[in-house]
Amino acid sequence: MSNTLKIGLPKGSLQDATIKLFAKSGWKINLHHRNYFPDVNDEELTISMCRAQEMAKYVEDGVLDVGMTGKDWILENNSDVVEVSSLVYSKVSNRPARWVLAVSGDSPYEKPEDLAGKKIATELLGVTKRYFEEKGIDVEVFYSWGATEAKVVEGLCDAIVEVTETGTTIKAHGLKIIDDVMLTNTRLIANKDSWNDSWKRKKIENINLLLQGALKAEKMVGLKMNMPKDVLEKAMKVMPSLNSPTVSDLSDPKWVSVEIMIEEVAVRELIPELIDMGAEGIIEYPLNKVI
Amino acid sequence: MSNTLKIGLPKGSLQDATIKLFAKSGWKINLHHRNYFPDVNDEELTISMCRAQEMAKYVEDGVLDVGMTGKDWILENNSDVVEVSSLVYSKVSNRPARWVLAVSGDSPYEKPEDLAGKKIATELLGVTKRYFEEKGIDVEVFYSWGATEAKVVEGLCDAIVEVTETGTTIKAHGLKIIDDVMLTNTRLIANKDSWNDSWKRKKIENINLLLQGALKAEKMVGLKMNMPKDVLEKAMKVMPSLNSPTVSDLSDPKWVSVEIMIEEVAVRELIPELIDMGAEGIIEYPLNKVI
Amino acid sequence: MSNTLKIGLPKGSLQDATIKLFAKSGWKINLHHRNYFPDVNDEELTISMCRAQEMAKYVEDGVLDVGMTGKDWILENNSDVVEVSSLVYSKVSNRPARWVLAVSGDSPYEKPEDLAGKKIATELLGVTKRYFEEKGIDVEVFYSWGATEAKVVEGLCDAIVEVTETGTTIKAHGLKIIDDVMLTNTRLIANKDSWNDSWKRKKIENINLLLQGALKAEKMVGLKMNMPKDVLEKAMKVMPSLNSPTVSDLSDPKWVSVEIMIEEVAVRELIPELIDMGAEGIIEYPLNKVI
Amino acid sequence: MSNTLKIGLPKGSLQDATIKLFAKSGWKINLHHRNYFPDVNDEELTISMCRAQEMAKYVEDGVLDVGMTGKDWILENNSDVVEVSSLVYSKVSNRPARWVLAVSGDSPYEKPEDLAGKKIATELLGVTKRYFEEKGIDVEVFYSWGATEAKVVEGLCDAIVEVTETGTTIKAHGLKIIDDVMLTNTRLIANKDSWNDSWKRKKIENINLLLQGALKAEKMVGLKMNMPKDVLEKAMKVMPSLNSPTVSDLSDPKWVSVEIMIEEVAVRELIPELIDMGAEGIIEYPLNKVI
Amino acid sequence: MSNTLKIGLPKGSLQDATIKLFAKSGWKINLHHRNYFPDVNDEELTISMCRAQEMAKYVEDGVLDVGMTGKDWILENNSDVVEVSSLVYSKVSNRPARWVLAVSGDSPYEKPEDLAGKKIATELLGVTKRYFEEKGIDVEVFYSWGATEAKVVEGLCDAIVEVTETGTTIKAHGLKIIDDVMLTNTRLIANKDSWNDSWKRKKIENINLLLQGALKAEKMVGLKMNMPKDVLEKAMKVMPSLNSPTVSDLSDPKWVSVEIMIEEVAVRELIPELIDMGAEGIIEYPLNKVI
Amino acid sequence: MSNTLKIGLPKGSLQDATIKLFAKSGWKINLHHRNYFPDVNDEELTISMCRAQEMAKYVEDGVLDVGMTGKDWILENNSDVVEVSSLVYSKVSNRPARWVLAVSGDSPYEKPEDLAGKKIATELLGVTKRYFEEKGIDVEVFYSWGATEAKVVEGLCDAIVEVTETGTTIKAHGLKIIDDVMLTNTRLIANKDSWNDSWKRKKIENINLLLQGALKAEKMVGLKMNMPKDVLEKAMKVMPSLNSPTVSDLSDPKWVSVEIMIEEVAVRELIPELIDMGAEGIIEYPLNKVI
Repeated sequence: MSNTLKIGLPKGSLQDATIKLFAKSGWKINLHHRNYFPDVNDEELTISMCRAQEMAKYVEDGVLDVGMTGKDWILENNSDVVEVSSLVYSKVSNRPARWVLAVSGDSPYEKPEDLAGKKIATELLGVTKRYFEEKGIDVEVFYSWGATEAKVVEGLCDAIVEVTETGTTIKAHGLKIIDDVMLTNTRLIANKDSWNDSWKRKKIENINLLLQGALKAEKMVGLKMNMPKDVLEKAMKVMPSLNSPTVSDLSDPKWVSVEIMIEEVAVRELIPELIDMGAEGIIEYPLNKVI
Repeated sequence: MSNTLKIGLPKGSLQDATIKLFAKSGWKINLHHRNYFPDVNDEELTISMCRAQEMAKYVEDGVLDVGMTGKDWILENNSDVVEVSSLVYSKVSNRPARWVLAVSGDSPYEKPEDLAGKKIATELLGVTKRYFEEKGIDVEVFYSWGATEAKVVEGLCDAIVEVTETGTTIKAHGLKIIDDVMLTNTRLIANKDSWNDSWKRKKIENINLLLQGALKAEKMVGLKMNMPKDVLEKAMKVMPSLNSPTVSDLSDPKWVSVEIMIEEVAVRELIPELIDMGAEGIIEYPLNKVI
Repeated sequence: MSNTLKIGLPKGSLQDATIKLFAKSGWKINLHHRNYFPDVNDEELTISMCRAQEMAKYVEDGVLDVGMTGKDWILENNSDVVEVSSLVYSKVSNRPARWVLAVSGDSPYEKPEDLAGKKIATELLGVTKRYFEEKGIDVEVFYSWGATEAKVVEGLCDAIVEVTETGTTIKAHGLKIIDDVMLTNTRLIANKDSWNDSWKRKKIENINLLLQGALKAEKMVGLKMNMPKDVLEKAMKVMPSLNSPTVSDLSDPKWVSVEIMIEEVAVRELIPELIDMGAEGIIEYPLNKVI
Repeated sequence: MSNTLKIGLPKGSLQDATIKLFAKSGWKINLHHRNYFPDVNDEELTISMCRAQEMAKYVEDGVLDVGMTGKDWILENNSDVVEVSSLVYSKVSNRPARWVLAVSGDSPYEKPEDLAGKKIATELLGVTKRYFEEKGIDVEVFYSWGATEAKVVEGLCDAIVEVTETGTTIKAHGLKIIDDVMLTNTRLIANKDSWNDSWKRKKIENINLLLQGALKAEKMVGLKMNMPKDVLEKAMKVMPSLNSPTVSDLSDPKWVSVEIMIEEVAVRELIPELIDMGAEGIIEYPLNKVI
Repeated sequence: MSNTLKIGLPKGSLQDATIKLFAKSGWKINLHHRNYFPDVNDEELTISMCRAQEMAKYVEDGVLDVGMTGKDWILENNSDVVEVSSLVYSKVSNRPARWVLAVSGDSPYEKPEDLAGKKIATELLGVTKRYFEEKGIDVEVFYSWGATEAKVVEGLCDAIVEVTETGTTIKAHGLKIIDDVMLTNTRLIANKDSWNDSWKRKKIENINLLLQGALKAEKMVGLKMNMPKDVLEKAMKVMPSLNSPTVSDLSDPKWVSVEIMIEEVAVRELIPELIDMGAEGIIEYPLNKVI
Repeated sequence: MSNTLKIGLPKGSLQDATIKLFAKSGWKINLHHRNYFPDVNDEELTISMCRAQEMAKYVEDGVLDVGMTGKDWILENNSDVVEVSSLVYSKVSNRPARWVLAVSGDSPYEKPEDLAGKKIATELLGVTKRYFEEKGIDVEVFYSWGATEAKVVEGLCDAIVEVTETGTTIKAHGLKIIDDVMLTNTRLIANKDSWNDSWKRKKIENINLLLQGALKAEKMVGLKMNMPKDVLEKAMKVMPSLNSPTVSDLSDPKWVSVEIMIEEVAVRELIPELIDMGAEGIIEYPLNKVI
């Protein structure tokens, strides 16, 4: 009997990053022009490209077994699904995105309460309504079909609730942020029945394991170098290796070869230190997966 | 005191056609990159570019005095506005668009009733729900964030309600249309208070007059020719002129010059007939406005 | 009974110019993405977009009743079709294109005879072979799949036979032209049986009449002006009007209004002359068709 | 003997508008890819595409007989040339462009004097230096290789002198304008010797005549209508025609046909008035040239 | 004396993949705009970019020593060349492409024999003719200048022979495949004389060795991990390493470090197994060449 | 107290290569649309994107602490800055660029002296003037706003001084090079005061160390293989390793594993030799940094 797992991947701004992440994890996906079912080199998988907004509904209904979508849209849809894991990656930075409450930069509004009786435009209707209800602020919230920032500038509403990673687009429209409504990032979610099916659950867990391994590898590198044996102990203290370093003897008995896995961002600080200690022949190489 | 009329024009697929129509009508609009208020050569007008979906709400609320949007979105929003006129133009053909109920080409569904208990995806949520309620058919209707045709192909829903001018995209996805849900075309709508303001109403009526004149001119041309005086009467019978033809004498007393305004599509039939009658020196010239 | 005429229009470099020419002639053609049969506002026509190279074959076989293609490809295919008319228009200039024999600018070849025993690359295989046979020059002619000019530069052949309007691309590759192989321009061709069918022949003739009228109008304009009555006779001599000018009286009995149809290129010479004679209020307007 | 006039046209932002203007004036120019001498349908002309900044130098030196460039670059180069005429057209609006002195929107600078001792970046080095010298303000002016607005934002200078038509880009960078340095628009300039050559001067004057005629026609239209004879006098008073209207009799002796040439922008006001007076069958048609 | 090898690489759809493959193999090729001879960092090579269809002819004639092209075009040209090796890579998948016989999805044709007397369009004229001759089926085969699938849809032919990797484009046109005409993939081919020249043969063999090494490396990765010494034997059985694994001691005598080279696609199955066995600190790294 | 280093990176043709080089070196830079200060994952850095032409001025003035620009623009600006290092990388090749003196291919000019009294166009005004002054040749040098090669073709000047890496663009315009004016490549330059500040100098030196390490790694690879122990000594002689090779024992005592770091370009020669010696399981892997 051949089992199949139906997986939904997000269309749009995260699409390319997702296809790349799966490729690094071991699944090569080809999006054919005019073909709605992308090819993948795994006969146990069927892939659907869906809008992030609709994903949670399809997973909850069982149309899909598993899907990737944002925390924001899971809450917006009130979907009853299993959150398997968080996946921190994005199209711009590696920061989680946030939905913010923003108003015109030259408006008198300084806090949510100042907006009582005003009009709020947003694509995240349900979450926004709940946000104001919980605060006991009476506002009119209406659905915005895109270009939400511009609506404040054009005088079509008084405030917006919009998603941003860095705040750049918000500022570029001359708006100011007066509150955070919610933080969000990508989640791997599963249908409840699929999660209770042992074959499907094992498959989902393996996919998650390899996705996490690929994400981790994006931030790490391998580092190899030769160093005098007598500085090894001192060097060990400054090297934040994932595992214990691999130390090998060299033909010259006074020297050893050392190999470590470390965060790439630490390398630019570490190399000058290692050179000061006498390390030589330092090479850094890239990693595909770190598990 | 200087009066101002706030007018909303539709962003997106109709945007270029609308800017062009206004230019022909006498208003040159410049959409500046990064500037939300387009320039227009009329100090009495302020222009906002809005999504067609949101236009009726803004007009109803009085944020805008007047706007152009589809009949479909006026109904979807249940907006209480004045419908000033219909404007028949489009991005592809000159046919009005229609929202159709479509299912997979190889599905067994033949009529709306066959969809009882099924899932329907659409961007026109309210109208679609009312359509099924009026027929007494119980279905689940859910909102689709675009690429609606693909959802049937991918098995994410059983049927869709989607807009089409020619049916081409529907067919290209292998779908079949089983009912018309509504016909729609562009309307000029006004806020009720604005319509009751005499200055604003006059301004709106003038804009409408010139828009209609420019639309009419797109389908008409001027035709001038010389013909023997003795065939004039016979020729008059086959020439479907807007006004009575202008007939002028020529130096040769046996000939006259005739000028008419006719539908461009009639010209290709008319010219061979006129030549058979002896007409000569036929020229056709374009028109900007016909009022 | 409803008759239909199947017409083939050329894909590729002439496509846009052809669609525009038909629009001016009275037929609006819409090329839908993913739809092989373009829409046209005439129920008696069916349109196919074909490669110019293949058109004559389809017309000869009766798959199409009528088509537009180059004289070159009619000869290359040795097609037995009716040549209804020539249509002088192009994507760059209004000169007919020519197939030329070209060699490297620094090669010793000066005339076709110098190429005896050499390799000639061309897309126009049959015509080229006949050209050399008629001259009694023994060469190897082989088919070139595009980018033919580059083949001389890269040393893949000794000479090419390639089409050009202005010679610019030939020169830009450092080649020199040593002979003209043939002149070519667009022809309207008809299937022999279709031409003998009276309904189809009438339809083809009407289409041709209007295409020619639209082509003629591209080079002509209408010119209107006021002039003193006493210079009219003198002015008449310098005005190369298509028909005799239309002269109308004005309220000032010393002046008349004169209207002529002339070649646009003549206007820039004529206007200074007319001004010298005392003409005033000269306006020029565009024409759609001149028949 | 064949005379030739060498004319320089501006590359870059005005290029397309210029080619179009010449086409309307009667000269069809083809810019061939890889060919530095554009084709033109006039054997007496040779065309060079030049940067506006360099044009005046080439005309002054006699490398070109005549050229189109901005007043700004004529002054910047201190060129000794004949200014034949002004040509009011642009890529965005029809307003003349202006070079403005701009500073950061949140800086304390309010007037040129506040910039004493500061750094000014500009592409218009000479004019800017003279501007400050004439005011007796001591500043450091340095040349900016493009993206000048951004330099204030990035803190690379204190103020800029930059060209703008509508101020939109200046504002979009958060800058404020504190003075106008100069107004500029396009000029037709001639070399002094060429201007003294009678054949060349005549040719230049003819080109100028037709360019001006085409520019004027862009803003005007022809208007024809039928009206009751008894309102004609009243209607005449509101019709701002270029020439006196052409009035023709119609078969119905109570009606006349009236034709006028008027500014397009006036049409939208005039038509409602004429309809109120009883005019009918109003048509508007486009013009190519008005001289 | 300096020897040179002339190599032809395919233009068009495989061009980018080929340039990348050579870069991985050690040859950096720069395609300069307007330069027909690409730069390469090897003075012993001269590179020509050719159409795949023409490559075999040039290699057979000795214009090129060696070239890359498809098996299909070698057969179509009946070229007498040395096939050095197969290179399995493509622009979409890694499957070999195939030329298929396809007909309209709603046609009655089910097998090649049903097409007797019909018209077949193809770009692969010779191979297609031979295919039908060998089967003893009498058909008219004619050359198609591209867009071959559309010809069935438009009724211009009854069947086509066209190349496809995944069948997607065939299906998207509503066609069905009724036979395979031939499988094809890329070959490295050599001129017979070049192959008999010892210097050239050695050079060709080295290029082939490194191309194959780079292709193999695309599918493989390096995997390193730490594992308890006592599971090593068991782990060895599930690890499909290219070579025998490299096992190194760690400071903790109960653990070893293991490094293997395996197919990337096997990793996603292997890692969960290894983790179950107790492996830790698993990292995967990319490879450039595997020989 | 938190220190900050202001660094200027070149906009334009080197921008992408520079961003990539910094990423490899450990600094991830995000250029946000509409944001002039790119994000970087180092709180001690502030980044400005500047034109290469203006960089040296900003570094000299202390507006920036450190910047990357070409030797050419440092000389052109006569800037008094510290040249920290050379960085050999480019957008096309890895050769340093050179400014050359070029004339029309069919002109009589053969050497700089032949240009006495002639006009020279260039973007590098100062350096060019000094070049001719030092040779004692009297010429008119004027500033060229881009498209300099075309100016010779169009007859606007007699010679140009223009930058080129490979000479391709020069030749494509039909020009010939008659002298080298200067060689140039990218330099890391520092402000004198910044260089004397110990914190800034240390920071600059670290950045330089890692940039150099990333550049070096672009040309090197890691190579691992197994070989019979008895050929090790012979193999050592042909392997140009950066460091001494790392040799490890394998379970088969007759074989060893050898790992070296070598120039990638040497690999294609070395691998066939190693295979001849009996090496097996050769793999090559990429490097990020080599220090």
